[in-house]
Amino acid sequence: MTRLDGREADELRPVTIDPHFLKHPEGSVLITVGDTKVICTASIEDRVPPFMRGKGKGWIAAEYSMLPRATEQRNIREAAKGKLSGRTMEIQRMIGRSLRSVVDLSQIGERTIWIDCDVIQADGGTRTAAITGAFVAMVQALQKHQEDKKIDTIPVTDLLAAVSVGIDEKDNALLDLCYAEDAVAKVDMNIVMTGKGEFVELQGTGEEASFSRGQLNDLLALGERGLRHIMDIQKEVLQDVMDEDGNFRAENEEKGMSSE
Amino acid sequence: MTRLDGREADELRPVTIDPHFLKHPEGSVLITVGDTKVICTASIEDRVPPFMRGKGKGWIAAEYSMLPRATEQRNIREAAKGKLSGRTMEIQRMIGRSLRSVVDLSQIGERTIWIDCDVIQADGGTRTAAITGAFVAMVQALQKHQEDKKIDTIPVTDLLAAVSVGIDEKDNALLDLCYAEDAVAKVDMNIVMTGKGEFVELQGTGEEASFSRGQLNDLLALGERGLRHIMDIQKEVLQDVMDEDGNFRAENEEKGMSSE
Amino acid sequence: MTRLDGREADELRPVTIDPHFLKHPEGSVLITVGDTKVICTASIEDRVPPFMRGKGKGWIAAEYSMLPRATEQRNIREAAKGKLSGRTMEIQRMIGRSLRSVVDLSQIGERTIWIDCDVIQADGGTRTAAITGAFVAMVQALQKHQEDKKIDTIPVTDLLAAVSVGIDEKDNALLDLCYAEDAVAKVDMNIVMTGKGEFVELQGTGEEASFSRGQLNDLLALGERGLRHIMDIQKEVLQDVMDEDGNFRAENEEKGMSSE
Amino acid sequence: MTRLDGREADELRPVTIDPHFLKHPEGSVLITVGDTKVICTASIEDRVPPFMRGKGKGWIAAEYSMLPRATEQRNIREAAKGKLSGRTMEIQRMIGRSLRSVVDLSQIGERTIWIDCDVIQADGGTRTAAITGAFVAMVQALQKHQEDKKIDTIPVTDLLAAVSVGIDEKDNALLDLCYAEDAVAKVDMNIVMTGKGEFVELQGTGEEASFSRGQLNDLLALGERGLRHIMDIQKEVLQDVMDEDGNFRAENEEKGMSSE
Amino acid sequence: MTRLDGREADELRPVTIDPHFLKHPEGSVLITVGDTKVICTASIEDRVPPFMRGKGKGWIAAEYSMLPRATEQRNIREAAKGKLSGRTMEIQRMIGRSLRSVVDLSQIGERTIWIDCDVIQADGGTRTAAITGAFVAMVQALQKHQEDKKIDTIPVTDLLAAVSVGIDEKDNALLDLCYAEDAVAKVDMNIVMTGKGEFVELQGTGEEASFSRGQLNDLLALGERGLRHIMDIQKEVLQDVMDEDGNFRAENEEKGMSSE
Amino acid sequence: MTRLDGREADELRPVTIDPHFLKHPEGSVLITVGDTKVICTASIEDRVPPFMRGKGKGWIAAEYSMLPRATEQRNIREAAKGKLSGRTMEIQRMIGRSLRSVVDLSQIGERTIWIDCDVIQADGGTRTAAITGAFVAMVQALQKHQEDKKIDTIPVTDLLAAVSVGIDEKDNALLDLCYAEDAVAKVDMNIVMTGKGEFVELQGTGEEASFSRGQLNDLLALGERGLRHIMDIQKEVLQDVMDEDGNFRAENEEKGMSSE
Repeated sequence: MTRLDGREADELRPVTIDPHFLKHPEGSVLITVGDTKVICTASIEDRVPPFMRGKGKGWIAAEYSMLPRATEQRNIREAAKGKLSGRTMEIQRMIGRSLRSVVDLSQIGERTIWIDCDVIQADGGTRTAAITGAFVAMVQALQKHQEDKKIDTIPVTDLLAAVSVGIDEKDNALLDLCYAEDAVAKVDMNIVMTGKGEFVELQGTGEEASFSRGQLNDLLALGERGLRHIMDIQKEVLQDVMDEDGNFRAENEEKGMSSE
Repeated sequence: MTRLDGREADELRPVTIDPHFLKHPEGSVLITVGDTKVICTASIEDRVPPFMRGKGKGWIAAEYSMLPRATEQRNIREAAKGKLSGRTMEIQRMIGRSLRSVVDLSQIGERTIWIDCDVIQADGGTRTAAITGAFVAMVQALQKHQEDKKIDTIPVTDLLAAVSVGIDEKDNALLDLCYAEDAVAKVDMNIVMTGKGEFVELQGTGEEASFSRGQLNDLLALGERGLRHIMDIQKEVLQDVMDEDGNFRAENEEKGMSSE
Repeated sequence: MTRLDGREADELRPVTIDPHFLKHPEGSVLITVGDTKVICTASIEDRVPPFMRGKGKGWIAAEYSMLPRATEQRNIREAAKGKLSGRTMEIQRMIGRSLRSVVDLSQIGERTIWIDCDVIQADGGTRTAAITGAFVAMVQALQKHQEDKKIDTIPVTDLLAAVSVGIDEKDNALLDLCYAEDAVAKVDMNIVMTGKGEFVELQGTGEEASFSRGQLNDLLALGERGLRHIMDIQKEVLQDVMDEDGNFRAENEEKGMSSE
Repeated sequence: MTRLDGREADELRPVTIDPHFLKHPEGSVLITVGDTKVICTASIEDRVPPFMRGKGKGWIAAEYSMLPRATEQRNIREAAKGKLSGRTMEIQRMIGRSLRSVVDLSQIGERTIWIDCDVIQADGGTRTAAITGAFVAMVQALQKHQEDKKIDTIPVTDLLAAVSVGIDEKDNALLDLCYAEDAVAKVDMNIVMTGKGEFVELQGTGEEASFSRGQLNDLLALGERGLRHIMDIQKEVLQDVMDEDGNFRAENEEKGMSSE
Repeated sequence: MTRLDGREADELRPVTIDPHFLKHPEGSVLITVGDTKVICTASIEDRVPPFMRGKGKGWIAAEYSMLPRATEQRNIREAAKGKLSGRTMEIQRMIGRSLRSVVDLSQIGERTIWIDCDVIQADGGTRTAAITGAFVAMVQALQKHQEDKKIDTIPVTDLLAAVSVGIDEKDNALLDLCYAEDAVAKVDMNIVMTGKGEFVELQGTGEEASFSRGQLNDLLALGERGLRHIMDIQKEVLQDVMDEDGNFRAENEEKGMSSE
Repeated sequence: MTRLDGREADELRPVTIDPHFLKHPEGSVLITVGDTKVICTASIEDRVPPFMRGKGKGWIAAEYSMLPRATEQRNIREAAKGKLSGRTMEIQRMIGRSLRSVVDLSQIGERTIWIDCDVIQADGGTRTAAITGAFVAMVQALQKHQEDKKIDTIPVTDLLAAVSVGIDEKDNALLDLCYAEDAVAKVDMNIVMTGKGEFVELQGTGEEASFSRGQLNDLLALGERGLRHIMDIQKEVLQDVMDEDGNFRAENEEKGMSSE
């Protein structure tokens, strides 16, 4: 089998994460996955949304958008239409939920981490690239907050990354679909996984199709393989806050190390 | 282990489907799953949305809403707020996508099947109850269209039902969570399955938690068991359009039968 | 003269009020008037809208909506359109105003009684059915509040019910118009009346027509007759909080009675 | 009894109608009723709203607004809030309905008469002043259309005017309430009447109060007396299109008259 | 060169300012510039917008609107569309900014001066007429506030007026364009100037055209000449609060004068 | 005088224009002016907005937005708020108007050139950077259209660029204000100029201040100097479509040249 862009079925597109991409945000990266490019920023605000007030813990909220010409055809700005599409809301909710699963919100106090994912160029897999990049931006923002002595440790419990898998028209299971593949896929699945290999989100959809238990297992195996590779890239970018085993260094530990 | 309402871990709440519930719609049911009650209607309109025009095939669009006092606390109407929540949009998209997977849209011409799911009482599992009920309402509407000679056959390729499963705080896998269980569950998963046992949607989410491959398998097994039972109830309601094996009778076949 | 459905000119359609219809709300009924079916709920919230704050008295606010397929043709959800129609706003204001006229708002403290009227099936007279049903739901909610010792008495000063009357194309005055009659009526009038026979709202409209003083008198007489019958049904449902004369029992009185 | 401004109970405030008030509209007046001042314009557009298309007849649509400082306290613009209040919608619908009752819409073709009523100073009775003024502006616009040979006759079947009546705290029935009276009135009623003395709209409301059949009769008598006087002022302004009996002159008749 | 309405290139249309035009507002004028008529009101509210809170100084906010038939063709109400056009927002911001430049906001305390400019008839130059009129209404409102002892002095530092200038198709520089001239002008410039002859706003635009430094100088000279004349009219209306030199009288000074 | 960042009063920040920045749009650049970074794209659509239909000529429409963390403090997305701010609308209108002044719209047929300017990092002067960058993106899109034989020539009549100038608190006239300078400037002016040195837009504003004729002249001189330099950078990027004198090469001419 040959894929459109010559990749193997279980091959990722080139992934890069460009840290500290913007001047103002506490955390920011440009993540590229093939031709997909997303700017992810993390901002920490000293208050929480109304439904979280008085609970003594924090919140993570995500927003997602595309530039009008991130896509082949110009798409109308949601600001001009005056409302968010269902697709955008679905993605925003998924990004926020995913990140909340690896942060101990009770350790950041009544603060909100705002995650902004802006797709400047789209070629499939924008929501999974957004999660992968947003995780790094969030860790950088928390690291800065720790350096500013606002929090004691970086309260992140594990690595987190996401990838898409799918089944094409000829029943091949594919890793990391580009847009042309995604447009004709029978099944599309987004997998969000932790460093320990546990699932945080699993969203499999057969648009005018269905999939068997066996196909599900194939997709999960493919996804896991791709996510291991993506997490290696995250670890490299985050090496100053993570040890070789992928554990976040506690502040005390660091101090201990530096006093030696 | 005892569940809040005395059920076994793999036990459904009582499910009833009350067909032809309203006077005006082509198809309508009241589905009750324990204390969850949803009115599902199906309406067939002789045109398709703009993005489907000129393709010679149909579309299925779903809308979902809750009465303000379907819930313990009164929730503000989305009509009064002037916009749909992300949760509502996500559910609407999921219902529509699920139903489209078992209908041969090329056989209904440029028509839209509007599915309306209105929750009049909520106790967990409203989106899965909505899909299960909407499937029946949709078949009834298509049956009526067939009787009116607007379409030749009921172009439904398989049964379709949905159920929720989840993992509670003590790591028990549970079938069909009620609201009190859902509110404290670590993992929540919605499964939409066809009569042939294939997945159409699989949405598993760990809110501030994650789940392993083994737990996933347990959940899928539980869900499949529950869905078999729910589909038996659907078949009973739809027995005049389905044979004993759960196949939809083609019109010719029926004619053949009636001419004997 | 024969009416479409065989009724006499001064004959109501069958009216039933099904109390405690839903599980969660403090008060709820399903009212049916012929084929018109409305779920009315009453919820008591411990605060008032901004314009009522600090006055030491309560408020009654009403919302009204129709399911998309309550009607012959599917109507678009106001939540999807993002705004309420003028018709909806007019009806909501009328329901709230009517109920406020028979409640001593100074006795409920700074609380809001939210009335929600959701039409699940429509065949004319939905707004008057909503008022008649909402009155019962409201009394039940206040009764529950009294039982919970939050208020001393049920501060309702009189019964309240509503009915429509109209003049058809042949100048017949008719009681309780069904949709088919309403659609061709020259004059349409909604009457909201108290148990003492006083008017609370009188809304007569000639759409592309007008009506004389004599016709007005005929309509008012017809309406009054119908309302007497509707109030008998309300009294029956509310018999545990009202005496034979239609007076609400004060708590003290009740206590006095029970101590005998 | 003395009223706030020294009027008798059955006395109108001074009413003036200033015709051709603005340069651009086909018809326009400034109506003043005491300190209430409303600019009413009528514009004729060569198309009808979607729900009227293809019926070969016209439509009358009305819009109503207040300047922010028409009132004692500045009120927020509905354009700034982004939506119309229920009160505005109710008034707009009432103005449109009232005018449609005295125009033979089949004679104006597929055209819309847009009525705009903008209150520049408010002191009670703005909606009734709007109807009275809008009627004159509408006749002028139709007269202009007739002069432009677009329609044969002025298809207005009768005069139309409106007034408010009410019952004050001491149970006095009052004609033409100013704002200070309206704010404390127990009952408020708007009456729209034709030149022949028939009702087109009757909207009586007891805000936290009710009214008897006898009080209704008193109010109707008061209103009728006031409306006779208001119609005399309308006739004077419209004397070039109406004869002494208040009948609209047909074009042929006029020609006949002028040829004598 | 002859202009459409017979004016000279450097001739203003007749300007009148009718003070105290409405009953309720603290300040209000009707300004007419040829056929352009704008009602300008000034209202003083005892609080400031959120972004100004706690700064101990005031704010000036302006709103601008047109009646639907202020124009040749009826334009749709922004309240009906549910949002303000870019043009309206641009004008509102310009009016507010201009007025803020001549008021010492630190002297009015945490108050907002609301400026409302409602165009009842439009014939070009509505935004400049609005600024000229709003200045007078604002001074009157501040004068009233001083009389009510809420502020010590009228904290207005200078006169302020605005005018439009432009270049027509034959490269003539024109003062005070009427609508017909504006519609075909190559360059349109709005000038807001103080009594001392300094610029507060200068907005020159070539729609599908450009202009040279020399043309700019011509336009500025024309504008300045027109503004001198307009300010004379403002001074006349405001003569009780300004001395012959155009200086606002301080309260002490006035007292001193009256004690003589 | 020393500026915050060590520049001379008449010194621009470093300006770079990175052409063909994105994969999908017909024209796209990343323009950086100091720390200000704007992605400008140009898309050509084969239809015009309703108000331009049937005129046989084209239109240029611009949209402008900022990423939430383009700024020091996170700003709320306009898509989330559901409406555009007045500032955004003003800027969008200004960009569109400016570009239309140097394009012969009759030569592009009934097409719309959509300009999208998305600020990914803001440090003052975003609107002028947007115009400068958008001009280049637009030329590239037209060049591509010419290459695709959809238009004969690039119908751009002149170069176009924009810059800001201002007056600081000590009355110094400054070129190209960064955000920190802009925030405290007494006068802010945006100048849009053509290659021939004519003005297309001139927007000078004194926020709570004013400026004299002399100061205006200083600002215009400063601006002109800066714009000359910016245009040199544009010419370099566009050298394959412009000759040394800054004239756009007509297609015929190019052919002529290549045939030599």
